[in-house]
Amino acid sequence: MSLIGGLAELADVLEEGSVLTDRDVIAAYRHDWARDPAAGWPTAVVRARSTGDVQAVMRWAADRRVPVVVRGAGTGLSGGATAADGGIVLSVERLRGVRVDPVTRTATAGAGVLNVEVKRAAAEHALWYPPDPSSFESSSIGGNVATNAGGLCCVKYGVTTDYVLGMEVVLADGTALRLGGPRVKDVAGLSLIKLFTGSEGLLGIITEVTVRLVPLPPPSATLVGTFASVDAAAAAVVAVTSAVRPSMLELLDRVSVNAVEDALRMNLDRAAEALIIARSDAPGVAAREEVAAMERICREAGATETFATTDPDEGEMFAAARREVLPALERRGSILLEDVGVSVPRLPALVRGIESIADRYRTVIAVIAHAGDGNTHPVIVFDPRDAEAAGRARLAFTAIMELALELDGTITGEHGVGRMKRQWLPAYLGEDAMDLTRRIKHALDPQWLLNPGVMMLPQ
Amino acid sequence: MSLIGGLAELADVLEEGSVLTDRDVIAAYRHDWARDPAAGWPTAVVRARSTGDVQAVMRWAADRRVPVVVRGAGTGLSGGATAADGGIVLSVERLRGVRVDPVTRTATAGAGVLNVEVKRAAAEHALWYPPDPSSFESSSIGGNVATNAGGLCCVKYGVTTDYVLGMEVVLADGTALRLGGPRVKDVAGLSLIKLFTGSEGLLGIITEVTVRLVPLPPPSATLVGTFASVDAAAAAVVAVTSAVRPSMLELLDRVSVNAVEDALRMNLDRAAEALIIARSDAPGVAAREEVAAMERICREAGATETFATTDPDEGEMFAAARREVLPALERRGSILLEDVGVSVPRLPALVRGIESIADRYRTVIAVIAHAGDGNTHPVIVFDPRDAEAAGRARLAFTAIMELALELDGTITGEHGVGRMKRQWLPAYLGEDAMDLTRRIKHALDPQWLLNPGVMMLPQ
Repeated sequence: MSLIGGLAELADVLEEGSVLTDRDVIAAYRHDWARDPAAGWPTAVVRARSTGDVQAVMRWAADRRVPVVVRGAGTGLSGGATAADGGIVLSVERLRGVRVDPVTRTATAGAGVLNVEVKRAAAEHALWYPPDPSSFESSSIGGNVATNAGGLCCVKYGVTTDYVLGMEVVLADGTALRLGGPRVKDVAGLSLIKLFTGSEGLLGIITEVTVRLVPLPPPSATLVGTFASVDAAAAAVVAVTSAVRPSMLELLDRVSVNAVEDALRMNLDRAAEALIIARSDAPGVAAREEVAAMERICREAGATETFATTDPDEGEMFAAARREVLPALERRGSILLEDVGVSVPRLPALVRGIESIADRYRTVIAVIAHAGDGNTHPVIVFDPRDAEAAGRARLAFTAIMELALELDGTITGEHGVGRMKRQWLPAYLGEDAMDLTRRIKHALDPQWLLNPGVMMLPQ
Repeated sequence: MSLIGGLAELADVLEEGSVLTDRDVIAAYRHDWARDPAAGWPTAVVRARSTGDVQAVMRWAADRRVPVVVRGAGTGLSGGATAADGGIVLSVERLRGVRVDPVTRTATAGAGVLNVEVKRAAAEHALWYPPDPSSFESSSIGGNVATNAGGLCCVKYGVTTDYVLGMEVVLADGTALRLGGPRVKDVAGLSLIKLFTGSEGLLGIITEVTVRLVPLPPPSATLVGTFASVDAAAAAVVAVTSAVRPSMLELLDRVSVNAVEDALRMNLDRAAEALIIARSDAPGVAAREEVAAMERICREAGATETFATTDPDEGEMFAAARREVLPALERRGSILLEDVGVSVPRLPALVRGIESIADRYRTVIAVIAHAGDGNTHPVIVFDPRDAEAAGRARLAFTAIMELALELDGTITGEHGVGRMKRQWLPAYLGEDAMDLTRRIKHALDPQWLLNPGVMMLPQ
């Protein structure tokens, strides 16, 4: 394979096989899970094996003003790893290796290590890395940090940024920096680690991270509550989170309940407007007590049925039901996965508004929600062979974001802005915050080489 | 009172009495608790009554290139609110008012509201704002956010940045921005709120904050453990934090134990090298169980004596003993309060090194530590009437920071860099991270008007 022009110079300083230009390889690296139809055709894919490789790519790219899109496991849902025409896709999937230090209760991992691999390495020392995006078995820790990934347990344990203690990051000019380390409390200097966390690859390329671990939690007790109205369910969520700290608090709307019931035949109430699945991992008998308290609260809020269990298998069955919603819907057609958030009391208005949007655009929309955080995932289901239906699905996607903005909510709770939501960011942040964002981007990447088009258009 | 030159123009746009130039008023606003001897004499103190006032001050200052030092309650310990010669001290103490929204579990407070006032307002709704710097009764929430303040409960509940959901901030050019709001999960855009949190007034002036609240925790159970060696105590801390999540885990060294014993006569073991005070606020009987587990761990690690109690008054007595260390030492002389952090396994090396430093500089140094976080507060006690002793105390202060750096620790765990630790920041962060810091500062405050001299010298 002969490499044109400057690419050969880059290949020369990297290990053989690092620079890939075959069209089918490139095709596989053009998209993340958002499958942005506007993805470009990059000149090459570079699979870095070390921070030094990443530095070499950035020095090379900075000299030639070549755009670089960084990519972890490619599981992003917002088009944050959408390739740029004529640019480089820089994959960090080969930045591997995870070390756990049980004494400082930290794990240090290459950006390409999967979230589940960090969890497993921690578990060998009876420790736990809490953040649990639904993609935890396939998404990389580098991508999790770059997007500040959330998950199901954040209602009690917080999101990715709450666990990042240190990182190695390569700037647009190829400088490599080490920030932080295995120190839980540290206020020396600006919060640079927090700034890079969630920056979606705009400010630098994260090559290694050090995360905080906590003791493995005790087994959970589980509560399921069925509600005739979303309003009653939302009232229960508010009351529950004011009284105890559940380790999971999920809500399924009627469409989701029916999708699960179709798939698993669990005898769920198909007429229910909302189902709540809540867990407590409080130590000892406290888990049972917390679940009992949540059960009382749900009944007072009008639950038509509740079921509590301390049996791990039974509890797992309901957690599995929650996880089944997406696969069950995917069997019905293509999906567009939304990620809007509102304050919990506005959940009913959001769910009803989404019902109207589904009617207006003649499309199926299921709502699953990390209800304790007000973070919802409306799932728009459509027939991919029907271009007109796909168009209506995209209009519904936009309408949901606009509804979230009307309800003083966020356009993205955990998936990120990427390219898919770029257009709505100014409406959410306001022009002054956008200007501040551009000033910080410009200060760190004056040539706008990193992830061009993510969050905003290059200036 | 006649105001010279441009000051009159500023006074004209603010409410009467907002611009103060009396020498005794200025003298009271020149320092924070660090009492930096290099503090300048400002031209005026401005007490803002609104975000609009803060904007007016910044527009006026930007036009005339006048430095502005922002000040909350003035309880900072690192000289972050040290006045600049010829500048303005901008006090936010009159930005008052706190509103709690129990439904979104948030409190929104003016920057001048005290931490304790936020806690009290939350408690009226059975909610809790966890961050608890020792100064919580006198420090402002704005200052807490600007310094990313820590405290005793962070070992379980995290630091200030973990609770800030939104803020209003005025930039150096007078632009006012609203960032975030009562939404727990939000990844739309760069982590600007996290960047301003802990920025020590360098990037903007925080005028209002929205913080996340959690349910009030149940009553705590308490454990006290006495250790013949700091090594054994540190081993106990590592083992405890690997197994359970205490809500407080403090360590007192021998000097501290003796200072408390002198003051309170509690029958503490004066020969002990370390005393650990640990608490659990797990729900129901779990608190007692967690304390029992911690007691077993401490005994296995070699505790010579342990005492566990679920009696709130007894527990409070030991928490009070911890709080008594500083006042007891202050009665003996002037103090310099250090704030270095190391990973927990390095606590013994730090404590022994500090003993050597105390010997070398013939000064008394007590160590109290938020041991679960590895964050220590060496307290250097000296006779203020003895200039030579004061000089030795300052040398010891420096030597402790250098020791922390040798042990791969941080120069400040929770008090901030301010002016007092500016000189050591490059050694800790490295030149590349300092350069990044300067680029961000320059992007947000191109005239370097805000808090000049904090963290670094103006460029």
